[in-house]
Amino acid sequence: MKRHLISAADLTRDDAVLILDTAEEMARVADRPIKKLPTLRGRTVVNLFFEDSTRTRISFEAAAKRLSADVINFSAKGSSVSKGESLKDTALTLEAMGADAVVIRHHASGAPYRLANSGWIDGAVVNAGDGTHEHPTQALLDAFTMRRRLVGRDAGIGRDLSGRRITIVGDVLHSRVARSNVHLLTTLGAEVTLVAPPTLVPVGVETWPCEVSYDLDTVLPKSDAVMMLRVQRERMNAAFFPTEREYARRYGLDGDRMAKMPEHAIVMHPGPMNRGMEITAEVADSDRCTAVEQVANGVSTRMAVLYLLLGGSEPAVTTTNARTEENK
Amino acid sequence: MKRHLISAADLTRDDAVLILDTAEEMARVADRPIKKLPTLRGRTVVNLFFEDSTRTRISFEAAAKRLSADVINFSAKGSSVSKGESLKDTALTLEAMGADAVVIRHHASGAPYRLANSGWIDGAVVNAGDGTHEHPTQALLDAFTMRRRLVGRDAGIGRDLSGRRITIVGDVLHSRVARSNVHLLTTLGAEVTLVAPPTLVPVGVETWPCEVSYDLDTVLPKSDAVMMLRVQRERMNAAFFPTEREYARRYGLDGDRMAKMPEHAIVMHPGPMNRGMEITAEVADSDRCTAVEQVANGVSTRMAVLYLLLGGSEPAVTTTNARTEENK
Amino acid sequence: MKRHLISAADLTRDDAVLILDTAEEMARVADRPIKKLPTLRGRTVVNLFFEDSTRTRISFEAAAKRLSADVINFSAKGSSVSKGESLKDTALTLEAMGADAVVIRHHASGAPYRLANSGWIDGAVVNAGDGTHEHPTQALLDAFTMRRRLVGRDAGIGRDLSGRRITIVGDVLHSRVARSNVHLLTTLGAEVTLVAPPTLVPVGVETWPCEVSYDLDTVLPKSDAVMMLRVQRERMNAAFFPTEREYARRYGLDGDRMAKMPEHAIVMHPGPMNRGMEITAEVADSDRCTAVEQVANGVSTRMAVLYLLLGGSEPAVTTTNARTEENK
Repeated sequence: MKRHLISAADLTRDDAVLILDTAEEMARVADRPIKKLPTLRGRTVVNLFFEDSTRTRISFEAAAKRLSADVINFSAKGSSVSKGESLKDTALTLEAMGADAVVIRHHASGAPYRLANSGWIDGAVVNAGDGTHEHPTQALLDAFTMRRRLVGRDAGIGRDLSGRRITIVGDVLHSRVARSNVHLLTTLGAEVTLVAPPTLVPVGVETWPCEVSYDLDTVLPKSDAVMMLRVQRERMNAAFFPTEREYARRYGLDGDRMAKMPEHAIVMHPGPMNRGMEITAEVADSDRCTAVEQVANGVSTRMAVLYLLLGGSEPAVTTTNARTEENK
Repeated sequence: MKRHLISAADLTRDDAVLILDTAEEMARVADRPIKKLPTLRGRTVVNLFFEDSTRTRISFEAAAKRLSADVINFSAKGSSVSKGESLKDTALTLEAMGADAVVIRHHASGAPYRLANSGWIDGAVVNAGDGTHEHPTQALLDAFTMRRRLVGRDAGIGRDLSGRRITIVGDVLHSRVARSNVHLLTTLGAEVTLVAPPTLVPVGVETWPCEVSYDLDTVLPKSDAVMMLRVQRERMNAAFFPTEREYARRYGLDGDRMAKMPEHAIVMHPGPMNRGMEITAEVADSDRCTAVEQVANGVSTRMAVLYLLLGGSEPAVTTTNARTEENK
Repeated sequence: MKRHLISAADLTRDDAVLILDTAEEMARVADRPIKKLPTLRGRTVVNLFFEDSTRTRISFEAAAKRLSADVINFSAKGSSVSKGESLKDTALTLEAMGADAVVIRHHASGAPYRLANSGWIDGAVVNAGDGTHEHPTQALLDAFTMRRRLVGRDAGIGRDLSGRRITIVGDVLHSRVARSNVHLLTTLGAEVTLVAPPTLVPVGVETWPCEVSYDLDTVLPKSDAVMMLRVQRERMNAAFFPTEREYARRYGLDGDRMAKMPEHAIVMHPGPMNRGMEITAEVADSDRCTAVEQVANGVSTRMAVLYLLLGGSEPAVTTTNARTEENK
C-alpha cells in the first residue's frame, strides 16, 4: 500500500480488499473485554480540520484512540493559519512536532495531495474530505458495509464487489462522496449508476466508468444498493437546483420507491440525513437502511487505514499483543 | 442502580448512598503515587455539549481520564447538529461509534431523558444539566460535600443526611441545581428550606417536599448548610427580578449574616461566584465556604457515577488492579 | 529549580543548562520504538489559553502526552471566564480538579505571575506567553537550537552559549519572544544585539544587558545567529511603524543580507513566518534557517520543563522505565 490515502482512485483492487479485510479484524476489537489495541502506542495522529466536521473528526479520533495512538485536534479556525500561515508552514510545523499521521479536511480540492506530495511531511497523510474532490475513507466504509451486507461478513473476506449493482442518487456534481465511491466501487468490480437532476451531473461524466440515468424508478429494481446523497440545503436556492418539493418528488426515496428494490437490496446514506428531503423517515428507520451501521463501520475502516499506513509491518491483531493488553 | 443518571429524583436512598460511598473511595485515588485507576480502560466517554460549560466538561473529562477511559469532546456548536441534524441522528451516530457513556448538557429540559429512553443508544446517559430541569451530579457532589463536613469523612460512610437542615437561597425558579438538590436532599433525609424573591419561586412549589421562606435572616440560625445559588446576571433586567442592589441586600450572604449561622454550619456555592452579588468576598474566602472543595468533590463524584454506570460488576478499587497500575 | 516557570529572568545559568541538557535526553525519545515515556502517568496538565495559539498549545500537548500525562484543554473563550469569572476562581477550580501543571497563555502581562504567586494553586505554573512580557519556553527552545547548532549536540551538554553573538531583529517593543531571549541569552553568556526601527525600541532599553543598533548590515557579519521576529501585520497601520515596503527593505532578511553573515551563522524565526516581509522565501527555505528545527526542539524543551517541574525527583529517562515501557 502507498504511504498516504489521498484518493480512492489510487487504490488497486488488492489494496482495497486488504483494507476491507483489515477492517473486519478491527471490527472484532469492539467485542473484546478491553476495546483497544496497543498497536499504535507512542504514535501521534493529528486531526487537521480546515472545515468543521464533527462526525468525521470524532470517527478518526475514536479509531486512533482504539489503536492507543495519541490524538491532537487542530482546528484551523482561529489558528495562525487564519493569520495567513501557509499550508506549507502548517505542514512543516506538524512534521516537526512529530506527527506520524495527519488527517486533513480542507475546503480546497487538492489540499491533501499537496500536503502529501510536497516533501513537507514524512508522516502519512489521510484525506478526510477535500472540496468537491474526494473522501476516500467514506467510500471505503461504504464498500465495507456493502460487502458485509451483500456478500457476507465471513464470506466476504478476500472478496470484492464483482457483479453488484450500486445506484448513487442526488447532487453528484458537488459530492466528494459520489466521486470516491465511483472510483472505488468500479475498482472492486461493481457496476455503478448515477441518478441526478440533469443540472447536477458533472461535466465530463461520460468519461467516468459508470452509467447515468435521470429516472430513479427504472433503476431501483436493478439495484443491490441505493446510496442517497445528502442534499446541501444551502445550495437549494441556486438556479440549477430543483425546488425542495420537486427534488423530494423526483429524487427522494420513500416507502413506495423502496418497495421497488429487490428484497435483498440495501439503502445507504453517509449522514446526517435530511428526513423528508432525500429520504423519508420511514425509509431512514427501516431495517434496510444502513446509515447507522455505516458510522460503526467508519471507525473500523479508519482503524484499518491508520493501522496499515502507520503500523504496516506487524500484524494488526497479534495474539501476544492482544493478550498482553487484555491482561494489563 | 439504573443504567442512566437523568434525574436526582430517580435515585433511591440506597443508590445515592452507594454513589457517595464510592466517591469516597475515588477521592483516595488522588493520594496514590499514580493518580489513576485502570477500571475503564478501553471505554469511551463522549462529552456531548449543546451549551458551553467548560467547568462541567472539564470535571467529567478529568473524572473519565482518571479511570483511564478515552474521552471525546463533542461540542454541538458548529457541528452538523447546527446544520439541522436531529438529536436522534446524533445519538445513533455516537452509539455506532461505540460510546459507552454520553455525558449530555443541553439547553432544553428533557433532552437527556429523550436520549436515554428512546432506544437510540445502548450506552449510559449522564445528565450534565438540561435547561432549568436537573443537574444531578451537581446535587450528588453537594451532598457528598455536606456529608463530609456535617457527618464526617469516615463516619459518613453508609450514612445519609438525616436531620440536617439545608437552606437554598436565590433564583430557584431558573435553577436546575436547586431542583436536583431538593430531590436528592430529601431522599437523603435532610430538611430543605428555599429562600427566594417571591417572583423567583416556581409555581407549584407547594407540592415540593420542602419549606419556602422569604426571610433569609430568620432561617440562617436553623441551617446546617446554606447553599447560595449563582445569579444569572443576564436575567437581571427582567421585570420579575429585583435590582442588583436590592438583591444583594435581601438575599446576598455577607459576614454579618454568616455570623447568624450555627458555628458548624457551612456555606456552599456551585460556582462561579459573583462576589459582591449573592456572596461577599469575605464569605467566599472564609473557611466555612466550601466552593473549592465542591469542585474537587465533583471529580470524585463523577468518577463514582461513571464507574457505577460503566464498570459496575467489579470493585472500583481492587488491591490487585491498584497494585498492577502502580507498579507499571 | 523553582516550582514554576514564569520568566526567563528567573533562571540561573545552572537552571537553564539543566533544562537544555534534559531537553537533549528528551529529544532521544523520538528515536525509540515507542515514542513515549511513562514518567508523568497519572499527572494532569491543563492548557489554560486566554488567547488563541494553536502552535504553542499543540506543542505543550504533544510534550505532555509523550510523557504520558493526561492533557485537558481549557480555552477561556466562551467559558465561564467570559461570563466574568475571575482568574482567581478559575485557578481555584483547576487546582481543585487536581491540575498538576497549568500552562497559561494570557493577553495580560503578569497573569502567569499572579497565578503562580497568589497561593491559589499548588501545581506548577508555566508561562506560555503573557502580553508583551515573556515567553520563556520559546527562549529556551531557541537557546537549545543555538547550542545544538553552534556548540554541538553532544559537545553542548553541560555548556552554555558563552561568547556567541546573537542578533535579534524587528519589533522588539511588542515582542515577548525578544524579552525572554535577552534575559536567557545573557544568562547563558551570549552577547545580544537588538536591531529595530527607532520607534519599536522599548523605552529603558539602555538598562537591558544588550547592545542596540539601527543598522542591520553592519551587525550581520558579527553574528553567530540572527533571530528574525515575526511582524504583527495588525500593527502595521500604527503611526510608529514603517510601511511594509520600508520595513522589508531596512529590516527584512534576504539572500544578499544572509550572504554577509559568517558561514557558520544561522537564521532563526519563532514562526509562523511572513515570507516576503521580515524574511524572504529564499532565506526561509535555506539550510541555514532553523525555523522547523525550532518547532521540533520546542517539544523536547517543553518535555524537559514539564518533567523537571513535575517529576524532578526521579531520572527522566531510566533504563528500567524505558525498558518496561518498550516491552509493553
